[in-house]
Amino acid sequence: MYSSVTSTSSFETRKKLLIEEMAKFLPSDSIIADEETLRVYECDGLSAYCERPLLTVLPDSVENVQKILKLCHRWGVPVVARGAGTGLSAGATPSPEGILLSLARLNRILRIDPEARTATVQPGVRNLAISQAVEPMGLFYAPDPSSQIACTIGGNLAENAGGAHCLKYGLTVHNVLAFEMLTAEGERVRVGGQGLDNCGFDLLPLIIGSEGLLGVITEITVKLLPSPDAAQVIMAAFDSVEKAGDAVAGVIAKGIIPAALEMMDRYAIQAAEDFVRAGYPTNVEALLLCEIDGVREEVAEYVEQVEDLFRELGAVAVRTSQSDAERALLWKGRKSAFPAVGRISPDYYCMDGVIPRSQLSYVLTRMREMSEEYGLRVANVFHAGDGNLHPLIMFDANVPGEFEKTEEFGGRILELCVAVGGCITGEHGVGLEKIRQMRSQFSDSELEQFHAVKEAFDPGGVLNPGKGVPILRRCQEYRSIGN
Amino acid sequence: MYSSVTSTSSFETRKKLLIEEMAKFLPSDSIIADEETLRVYECDGLSAYCERPLLTVLPDSVENVQKILKLCHRWGVPVVARGAGTGLSAGATPSPEGILLSLARLNRILRIDPEARTATVQPGVRNLAISQAVEPMGLFYAPDPSSQIACTIGGNLAENAGGAHCLKYGLTVHNVLAFEMLTAEGERVRVGGQGLDNCGFDLLPLIIGSEGLLGVITEITVKLLPSPDAAQVIMAAFDSVEKAGDAVAGVIAKGIIPAALEMMDRYAIQAAEDFVRAGYPTNVEALLLCEIDGVREEVAEYVEQVEDLFRELGAVAVRTSQSDAERALLWKGRKSAFPAVGRISPDYYCMDGVIPRSQLSYVLTRMREMSEEYGLRVANVFHAGDGNLHPLIMFDANVPGEFEKTEEFGGRILELCVAVGGCITGEHGVGLEKIRQMRSQFSDSELEQFHAVKEAFDPGGVLNPGKGVPILRRCQEYRSIGN
Repeated sequence: MYSSVTSTSSFETRKKLLIEEMAKFLPSDSIIADEETLRVYECDGLSAYCERPLLTVLPDSVENVQKILKLCHRWGVPVVARGAGTGLSAGATPSPEGILLSLARLNRILRIDPEARTATVQPGVRNLAISQAVEPMGLFYAPDPSSQIACTIGGNLAENAGGAHCLKYGLTVHNVLAFEMLTAEGERVRVGGQGLDNCGFDLLPLIIGSEGLLGVITEITVKLLPSPDAAQVIMAAFDSVEKAGDAVAGVIAKGIIPAALEMMDRYAIQAAEDFVRAGYPTNVEALLLCEIDGVREEVAEYVEQVEDLFRELGAVAVRTSQSDAERALLWKGRKSAFPAVGRISPDYYCMDGVIPRSQLSYVLTRMREMSEEYGLRVANVFHAGDGNLHPLIMFDANVPGEFEKTEEFGGRILELCVAVGGCITGEHGVGLEKIRQMRSQFSDSELEQFHAVKEAFDPGGVLNPGKGVPILRRCQEYRSIGN
Repeated sequence: MYSSVTSTSSFETRKKLLIEEMAKFLPSDSIIADEETLRVYECDGLSAYCERPLLTVLPDSVENVQKILKLCHRWGVPVVARGAGTGLSAGATPSPEGILLSLARLNRILRIDPEARTATVQPGVRNLAISQAVEPMGLFYAPDPSSQIACTIGGNLAENAGGAHCLKYGLTVHNVLAFEMLTAEGERVRVGGQGLDNCGFDLLPLIIGSEGLLGVITEITVKLLPSPDAAQVIMAAFDSVEKAGDAVAGVIAKGIIPAALEMMDRYAIQAAEDFVRAGYPTNVEALLLCEIDGVREEVAEYVEQVEDLFRELGAVAVRTSQSDAERALLWKGRKSAFPAVGRISPDYYCMDGVIPRSQLSYVLTRMREMSEEYGLRVANVFHAGDGNLHPLIMFDANVPGEFEKTEEFGGRILELCVAVGGCITGEHGVGLEKIRQMRSQFSDSELEQFHAVKEAFDPGGVLNPGKGVPILRRCQEYRSIGN
């Protein structure tokens, strides 16, 4: 048995045994065991956290995923499932004693039903590929994380991914109707359905966003939406972030629901403009991008209302896209903001917190104060409409101690989010990165409840161990209650 | 210890011990122990299922609910929580060996925040009382079950209640931001928050609709919506249910989202018209009520579009409310349909299933065939827009065997819903009533997963035992896996 081997023999023996067993059902090109190739899988998009897995496996059928899970469950081998590895919270960092389960080869679109407006796909299908496949039918899949060219729908479910357009269209959880998953023991479970409500415990929103801790999703049915007739972006510039924050509140208060409502501050604007020449004014403190979509006449009417509102609330410049090309260019600036900041700083650390919209000005002011205190610049790019901040802390990893200072600063930003009634992650997840901050968000009894749920799905604790939910100090006590 | 008492002493001793212990913290008027008054609590709205509880307790503070739960957990006493008892699936039927925990005295509205558009209330607050309290601020709480005058928000959460307007505004789960609950062990757990997403496992949609099996909710923060400027109802009559079904599909396909889209068939129309004189035509096979709400101009435009569409699709009569009084009268007929059917039949049994909208005509035809087969009339009243059926099977409980025949017919309707890709409950829950049909909906491994979740929240199995999730045949096996 594997578990007895663990205590007596070497790392290499364990690896060898696993390869032998996997080779019984996986073709050799589905097992990656050499150290050089394994390096590719060391980290996800948050490269500060690296671990080499024992093995990476790339099954191309659900049956083989099932066999892998049954084996790992029996032997107590940790399993970290991974999509494209674009995650930003080290949620897909491998376990050094376990296998990395890449779902990249489960990449088929299985069915498209334009009448029911659904698509059923495998987890390794890229986010954008869904919209591309259904575009000829006048449909699209709404959630659009910035990494949508590369990221997979399976990873989107694991992290409950959002994107610029989630203000109007919701997060991944709002756009998935059903899925099939395998439990840690390899049992097939169907979750969700076509209806508005389903009987039985509603496991769908529990599992979406659970960061690979509760099961491995093998097939997904997503909602498709009719592509809007028309869309325009209003760009508005302000001489203070507070005014821009008030303008965000103003739009929402008017009852208008933009498709997207994004904000950038001075550093982010300048970096993006230098990088892609989106046509942003560079001598301002804050920029809003407000997209309105829908029926053509409706769009025209709301655009006028929003333009007027922005001017009333002190915008120093307002410009609206007059063509799809112009709209695409305005968005290009925003979507390139992260790499653009990468050009003006040796390194940057992207945070992800959520605050009530009403706390926007206060939090931005406090962040500016902390920025001075730490001597680290911060560029802000965020989904203002739903209070999801993405502060980019700029630092230089070659300066000794600067990464640690950055991490501390980042931690304090997250604690500030919690203090004002918000939350330590908007759409990037907890992963390894924010595991400590979970303690500032939740009480011991709440964390105990999370552990009990984890155990209900994965009694052996093999799925993505150490992520998402911190180990309890009272773990020993908890176990005696749970059993 | 209670558990040792159970095996050796009588029912009465058990009851006496519980009263003694409860009296240490509850005032005497909060403990109901006499058989006569206990009869009030024997059943919920589905009176075919009756049980007398050992005791009913009516705590007026969260602290006392906590003490009750801790005591019951320690002693292994079943606890059935109850709101107003308007539920229709025997979800609040008492346990004869346990206590009925009425939350009726936790009935305070704690906070209203018109700017954040939220209200924080105790579970015993009536659904309609929330909208009434916030009406002066131009706000309302959207979910509107037919029982909204009487039913409580706590019960709404337990059953994930819907209502005529959930087509546009969603079910209870879509209108609750956060809540506090007590676990079976009496631990306080906060769930949800103000943001679009929250970190940690998303327990909110898991617990909403879990029928009192996972915890006792003690405080709820609901979303409020701005009251629409205008609302009009279009009534359209058809000479076949199929045509009415196609008209429902036509509205949805056009991309219009009515606030409500309800359908009634011949029996229901006639019964309602005889009862409240709503002005329905009585010589037709089906009636649609389609409500459009929103900004005044928008409403006018959509009303015209829907009227045209209904005529195109074969409506034999179309009429639109021209005043709020007329609108209220048209709704009064629909909302009185259940009691109206009660006038034309000694008894009726209200079913609750969900089907994909595309299956509407097929399911209605099959139901008509089964109606003939069983010799039992069926009136159909339902939320057509979201495929939620409410067939009312008419029967006479005084005719021996007729209730059993009705139950069998009802069961077959639910199995039909599952067969066409739907679900055995739309908004009334599983309770005791549909526990057998859960087996036609879910596989053993899915039911096992539900049991594991139940155990994660309520390891002693004291909360609402026997409801919602059927006991597994493989229960013994399951336990050895789960522990």
